[in-house]
Amino acid sequence: MTDLGPPASALDTDPEYRAAVVDLFGVLAYGELTAFERLAADAAMAPTIDDKAALAGMATAEYRHFVVIRDRLVEMGVDPQQAMTPFRRAYEDFHEHTAPSDWLEGMVKAYVGDGIGMDFYREIANFVDEDSRALVVSVCDDLGQSAFIVERVRAAINEDPRVGGRLALWGRRLVGEALSQAQRVAADRDALSTLLVGGVDRPGTDLAEIGRMLARLTENHARRMSALGLAA
Amino acid sequence: MTDLGPPASALDTDPEYRAAVVDLFGVLAYGELTAFERLAADAAMAPTIDDKAALAGMATAEYRHFVVIRDRLVEMGVDPQQAMTPFRRAYEDFHEHTAPSDWLEGMVKAYVGDGIGMDFYREIANFVDEDSRALVVSVCDDLGQSAFIVERVRAAINEDPRVGGRLALWGRRLVGEALSQAQRVAADRDALSTLLVGGVDRPGTDLAEIGRMLARLTENHARRMSALGLAA
Repeated sequence: MTDLGPPASALDTDPEYRAAVVDLFGVLAYGELTAFERLAADAAMAPTIDDKAALAGMATAEYRHFVVIRDRLVEMGVDPQQAMTPFRRAYEDFHEHTAPSDWLEGMVKAYVGDGIGMDFYREIANFVDEDSRALVVSVCDDLGQSAFIVERVRAAINEDPRVGGRLALWGRRLVGEALSQAQRVAADRDALSTLLVGGVDRPGTDLAEIGRMLARLTENHARRMSALGLAA
Repeated sequence: MTDLGPPASALDTDPEYRAAVVDLFGVLAYGELTAFERLAADAAMAPTIDDKAALAGMATAEYRHFVVIRDRLVEMGVDPQQAMTPFRRAYEDFHEHTAPSDWLEGMVKAYVGDGIGMDFYREIANFVDEDSRALVVSVCDDLGQSAFIVERVRAAINEDPRVGGRLALWGRRLVGEALSQAQRVAADRDALSTLLVGGVDRPGTDLAEIGRMLARLTENHARRMSALGLAA
């Protein structure tokens, strides 16, 4: 992992850096809260009570992650609602444009959509101080969703291979929509963008490194699609 | 609290009693799981991020209750999914017939519907052994929903008194639907019904006591409606 973050003291001395970290925690916190909602909605669509219970448990874990970030914001003297509000619209548009039409689409969304989101936040974590990075990495943990979802989706494709074509298209649509919302957030939130491109006293990164980061994100996405038995 | 329950050893010696307790845990567990789902869906409708976070927290607490009962079923050597399945239909019909059309109806449903459910389960707990009773009582705890919901609903009525009339009708509809599903469960599940009316070696209760129980349920319901500022 590249370490490009400033020391933690920058949170007190560099207002632009502080604003960037507050943005990062805000977008992550709201992401966890909507992940909770979405997994709970998936639980409501679950075919069996065991699946329902499993997804409810995952939703609960996302909520605990939300609490961890919210508490950190409070520690920093920031109103969590205020930190999350700028990102509400992007998440809501994303979810509105990618409402799963059935349980399997919900599962692919939870795996592929959250996967690329978590990868992205982990990449960004390279550009923040150690404490902030540890927090981001801890809430980006896989909570056991992956194994559960991979098993369920592969079983469905085995049973009816045509499902695979439909879900592959769905996976591509998810990524396209996620990218378009990410671009919107980057354009709206200057502080957050300076984490990558740098600011006063912070080096940021160069185009070559951004290219490598995008390559890593793309590779990981392709690996997830293939784990599900889907063409990326 | 009247103590009409047998000793815990009856779980091993009286198969009908054991079946009744498994039914009770099954209906409670599925109830907690659907309470989780419903509060999570309310969170998705919440007007502010703070409300969203508060409801997500309550949903998570319901899920923890679910886990407590599920674990007890497993301890008893019972498959939780099998114990819950007989009650799935009644809950689903209840929720289908009482889908809230907005956030306020969702709040009244969480308070009034769960309230009467929890009261009922606490009454039934009088007829089981001490350990089982302690479990039921612990998961019937108010998780802080009440204060939050009362405040939100009263504020909405203050702002627009016409809301009160609509929500009062809604509260009555909820109780009617809950009663009709409870009757269906009672008719379907003989073992569960014998908790009240008695079985071999178990006295059960008499009509006068059942009358008093219904009076208590009705009074508590009226008290909740009035706490919300609604005519029962």
